Amino acid sequence: MCEANAYILNGDQEELFFEKVDRVIPEDGQLILENIFGHKKMIKAEIKELALVDHKIILKRS
Amino acid sequence: MCEANAYILNGDQEELFFEKVDRVIPEDGQLILENIFGHKKMIKAEIKELALVDHKIILKRS
Repeated sequence: MCEANAYILNGDQEELFFEKVDRVIPEDGQLILENIFGHKKMIKAEIKELALVDHKIILKRS
Repeated sequence: MCEANAYILNGDQEELFFEKVDRVIPEDGQLILENIFGHKKMIKAEIKELALVDHKIILKRS
């Protein structure tokens, strides 16, 4: 499965925010993340980088 | 490998823009996409949706 883990940048640290993310949908200045189990989280952040082969989504609070 | 294909929305059609994308980096209102072969493309677009299990990155021109 090709889900990824979502990390929030805190300074130059990457803090795990949500595991096994399948979908990411930007909406109204927020991001809706849905994992492979159908659980959702919202966060006021933007995507800073995707590194899919490394299974990483890097977010930055906005 | 967990790369994804990037599609551009054209109306309600998804047109293939770039295959086997590994990295996506938003920069200065554009997106830099890099595929698993190290090839890069830039596009003035935003991410509309990620669907990683389906290996899809949906972009919308901005």
